[in-house]
Amino acid sequence: MKNDSVIKRIKPEVRAISAYTLREYEYEIKINQNENPYDVPCELKKEILEFAMERSWSRYPPFIPEELKERLAEYAGWKADGVLVGNGSNEIIQALLTVFLERGKKLVIPSPTFTLYRLIGTVVGAEVISVPLRNDYTFDCDEIEKQFLKDGDMLIICNPNNPTGCMYPLSRIESILQKTDAPVVVDEAYFEFAGETIAGLLKEYGNLVVLRTFSKAFSLAGLRVGYGLMNPDMAKEVGKAKLPYNINFFSIASALKLLENYTKLDTKVKEIIGERKPLIDAMNKIEGVTAYPSKANFILFETPFAPKKIFERLLAEGILIRDVSSYPMLEKALRVSVSTQSDNRRFLNYLTRILYELKDER
Amino acid sequence: MKNDSVIKRIKPEVRAISAYTLREYEYEIKINQNENPYDVPCELKKEILEFAMERSWSRYPPFIPEELKERLAEYAGWKADGVLVGNGSNEIIQALLTVFLERGKKLVIPSPTFTLYRLIGTVVGAEVISVPLRNDYTFDCDEIEKQFLKDGDMLIICNPNNPTGCMYPLSRIESILQKTDAPVVVDEAYFEFAGETIAGLLKEYGNLVVLRTFSKAFSLAGLRVGYGLMNPDMAKEVGKAKLPYNINFFSIASALKLLENYTKLDTKVKEIIGERKPLIDAMNKIEGVTAYPSKANFILFETPFAPKKIFERLLAEGILIRDVSSYPMLEKALRVSVSTQSDNRRFLNYLTRILYELKDER
Repeated sequence: MKNDSVIKRIKPEVRAISAYTLREYEYEIKINQNENPYDVPCELKKEILEFAMERSWSRYPPFIPEELKERLAEYAGWKADGVLVGNGSNEIIQALLTVFLERGKKLVIPSPTFTLYRLIGTVVGAEVISVPLRNDYTFDCDEIEKQFLKDGDMLIICNPNNPTGCMYPLSRIESILQKTDAPVVVDEAYFEFAGETIAGLLKEYGNLVVLRTFSKAFSLAGLRVGYGLMNPDMAKEVGKAKLPYNINFFSIASALKLLENYTKLDTKVKEIIGERKPLIDAMNKIEGVTAYPSKANFILFETPFAPKKIFERLLAEGILIRDVSSYPMLEKALRVSVSTQSDNRRFLNYLTRILYELKDER
Repeated sequence: MKNDSVIKRIKPEVRAISAYTLREYEYEIKINQNENPYDVPCELKKEILEFAMERSWSRYPPFIPEELKERLAEYAGWKADGVLVGNGSNEIIQALLTVFLERGKKLVIPSPTFTLYRLIGTVVGAEVISVPLRNDYTFDCDEIEKQFLKDGDMLIICNPNNPTGCMYPLSRIESILQKTDAPVVVDEAYFEFAGETIAGLLKEYGNLVVLRTFSKAFSLAGLRVGYGLMNPDMAKEVGKAKLPYNINFFSIASALKLLENYTKLDTKVKEIIGERKPLIDAMNKIEGVTAYPSKANFILFETPFAPKKIFERLLAEGILIRDVSSYPMLEKALRVSVSTQSDNRRFLNYLTRILYELKDER
């Protein structure tokens, strides 16, 4: 057995990081992963399954999903040859980091933000420079711009930001784009809930990349479809780091069907957006709770008690939220998805009761 | 527009390579991609589709497909914590190369072999050292061993080799494993058609990695499932470079169902194996044709005519095979999948007729 010695041949920074993991729990209400509480409409599922029954599974998917690229281009208002489709937008992030970065290069990201940027950045050997959010959990635009323009090789902004929900003003992103030709990646995973996008600037700035996903508004987290929008020359290069046949035929067929029927999903998105502000307000009315503004389908909040305690008490009631206290700055915070009205109410009721009980126990 | 300047920030070796592409054609018989001609049995498809109808698509797949890992471990005779499941085995190749290699490291591969090793190796910045096959298209084991032991950081052997079908003797792989702790990756995509595997040596050699796929014997090319077998410590590290939620719920459910019912697929695999030798023999009986021995579900062959001409004439008859003449050494070669008896016969008849016609035209 030479397990030890082969492991030493792995890049030291890979060995040093802990893997991105997530424990699984039993629950009745699942509001921990920013998922859409509404499944794909039944009649659409049926049509996709009928197609799958006919199609041979032993045949490769198309090498490049051209039809899907065209429909995505229409949906996003961009060119089909500037669209890359990935096995989740994660795959596009990975491809971008692989072609642009390596040892000696610098990736600038805000902190806290989506964990995967740092993880993949480290795996490809780049130095990851974190710019802390301000104390109110909004982006420190001045400091991000300063750090990136100094010697950054890539900037990634999650907009709205996960797990805080804050928005980076689009004008401030444009101001960065004007001053550098280094790639600026804007991850708009939650864009349908925010209602604003930087994609309109793609034709002006060849170094802008916009990432999107089907995992949130499109109710398709289970099938892993994401996409990137960028200038076609860049798409050609970044595409080289993407695996051939990276999207299976079933996910392609599902994404196409949902794009064709987006109005049906849009109603649900609007419903979730409608729930967001009342939920934040109601949470802020609970004594001791601070719920932060959000442009996404989740809410960051803090209480006077240990997040682990709140998490466990809610879980005991069958409500699974996310304890984000291991993120930098967020020692006191939890995150909850905005769900259906009934889920949101049940969460609110239990949160109120648990805080009352915890105060009583002191 | 700063398209040009942002492109210059991409690694030069990425810009220098051409992307892995495949043109699409119209056909009646598709024997160009080493696919299984038999679809997943209808009753199994139905059971999987029923499950998909019930399952919510808006929920993420499991973070790690534990049940699938356990069933794969049983199938392969290895430990579940030493199994990594990928979006096709391509994803495991990518993860391995990302954690072990970078600029300054050396990847040793035979040549010609599966194109993706060189492509990903180059993308991660490694130097790719190709060791040519011998003139009879068998592995040059002495030279591979010499080159790898000199200063190679990883060796990948596709066994049986794509696109030639030759086998690397397992004893020769063990002889390499005994002399180094550098990772030796054996891609057994076609193992079910070869009937021999190096996996039995996993417990003895911590630097051995075995790759497998559901795209061939398991009739699942359309759904992208592959896996890697390696020592659990290595699996933990390599897993860090794999994307979270990399396999969608539908592909997981399909792979599980097929493992449970593998005997149904095995009958078809045996049928294809039974077709192979008679097809090679019959091809060799056509004047001027040399068909090479193969342990996979495809056959490499040469004719006195330009491969492009053979390819086009067959395509005109609705038969799509693969022109592999752009591979190193294979200027005169084509590759054909072993398919159903009726497909094989039709291919043989047309190949015979086309060669006759071409001779006549000279």
